[in-house]
Amino acid sequence: MQITKEQVRFFEEQGYVLLPECFTRREVAALRREVPAIFAEDSLRRVVEKDGSFVRSVYGSHMSNETLGLLARHPRLVRPAMQMLGGEVYVYQFKVNAKASFGGDVWEWHQDYIFWMKEDGLPGPQVINAVVFLDEVNEFNGPLYLIPGSHAEGVFDVAAGGLPGGASSPYGSSPAWISNLTADLKYSLDKETVARLVRQHGLVAPKGNAGSVLFFHSNVVHGSPNNISPFDRTVVLVSFSRTDNVPAPLKNPRPDFLVSRNYEAIEPVADGALLSHSAPEGR
Amino acid sequence: MQITKEQVRFFEEQGYVLLPECFTRREVAALRREVPAIFAEDSLRRVVEKDGSFVRSVYGSHMSNETLGLLARHPRLVRPAMQMLGGEVYVYQFKVNAKASFGGDVWEWHQDYIFWMKEDGLPGPQVINAVVFLDEVNEFNGPLYLIPGSHAEGVFDVAAGGLPGGASSPYGSSPAWISNLTADLKYSLDKETVARLVRQHGLVAPKGNAGSVLFFHSNVVHGSPNNISPFDRTVVLVSFSRTDNVPAPLKNPRPDFLVSRNYEAIEPVADGALLSHSAPEGR
Repeated sequence: MQITKEQVRFFEEQGYVLLPECFTRREVAALRREVPAIFAEDSLRRVVEKDGSFVRSVYGSHMSNETLGLLARHPRLVRPAMQMLGGEVYVYQFKVNAKASFGGDVWEWHQDYIFWMKEDGLPGPQVINAVVFLDEVNEFNGPLYLIPGSHAEGVFDVAAGGLPGGASSPYGSSPAWISNLTADLKYSLDKETVARLVRQHGLVAPKGNAGSVLFFHSNVVHGSPNNISPFDRTVVLVSFSRTDNVPAPLKNPRPDFLVSRNYEAIEPVADGALLSHSAPEGR
Repeated sequence: MQITKEQVRFFEEQGYVLLPECFTRREVAALRREVPAIFAEDSLRRVVEKDGSFVRSVYGSHMSNETLGLLARHPRLVRPAMQMLGGEVYVYQFKVNAKASFGGDVWEWHQDYIFWMKEDGLPGPQVINAVVFLDEVNEFNGPLYLIPGSHAEGVFDVAAGGLPGGASSPYGSSPAWISNLTADLKYSLDKETVARLVRQHGLVAPKGNAGSVLFFHSNVVHGSPNNISPFDRTVVLVSFSRTDNVPAPLKNPRPDFLVSRNYEAIEPVADGALLSHSAPEGR
């Protein structure tokens, strides 16, 4: 699947593009079937909400789950990402974000690229996020708020904040990278910058049925409110980086479920892969 | 000002009605001018958000502030309230809710009447809330979510919850009524009930420019998410009760800034009162 020149131009100017119902109901159902097992997995790859009772995110499941592995190499994600980044791509990061009904918490205002620049030594922002909606995203269940065009201003080099002063971390003894994955983001933007950007560029909250895909640039400023509604808002977020944009070799890189070690160009799978594939044996 | 028969019927069925731009920009400006002083007031009538740095609500300012006193008796609020309640009304409660940009917190799912029934001995739900928008209410700044038609199911007699188990209250030494005013509502509804009601009745989030007024029935189930946007969402909330619906005489009633002691029928002021009135002297 290719997107149109107009869509590529829209992305270049606005920093995002929404493809409504990119995946069919049957494909979405095949993806959703995998979620309960992934959320039940008790491992470092799973991050819980502050209150401890809801899953917030699970990282790197494309490496362990066959269906999600196929999604990461799906032509309906990979080809548009290649078009918009202007080159071949690899999976930089893969996660499932839960934003559970009655409990999904805030994502503070931030840009994605700064985390990867600071923590992984990623040289450039040639990374695009593909957000695959596994539930309908509506005005009630904590949709992503994006500041359109904010990517054009480059990286806002905010000082590392970590957990707010005085707050005690539920992850007291966890590795340093955990603070990038919780509601208290390490590189969140200050209010003045966000307010100025919104005055200048406005604010959007792309919504759509399950199966829709929202692409956005890794320098787009974004955040999302909590989810008090009875509607879950599960999304899969695949971050594709251009193959000439790879992390610096570090002594202590973040775990491979946060930063892929495989920089080879993705060879997309067949368009019907999610349906033709049967559940892996031995489960 | 009178509302139409269709609007009254809509209210009876849906439990709410929105009157767009009921007050002019100049009237809104006159009201907004009063807000900073009210929020700056350090008294028990002021409730702060959990994190301590934002004002959440200020109660009873219609008794101390002349402009807000006029609003509480304004015909564009009082006459529709009388039409919808079918009789004369008095002010049961009056508050300004801040829902500040970058900090306004959640209001959990609840009905208003149960608080007044349990805490004040108010015999019936013949109370209507008039929410006057002092800022534009949009999809980003934490609008009220209402379950339309939920008032028809009557009161859900939930057990008093108070602060969640294990949580320490920032209001440790405060009077008991404080827990009704914070984000941890004493009579919040359980998830199952809310989910069932939304499946049955749907969910709405009335939005509008500053000056719009949202009326809703005291048994309508409602809540609101946090406000991560750069847009403040200040509203004035006047709760009108029918004059034949007054609290039981209690030994220790809640303070008069939470429950009015004056049950006399309101005599509406002149329609132009907010503009003809000049700022009170001595300030």
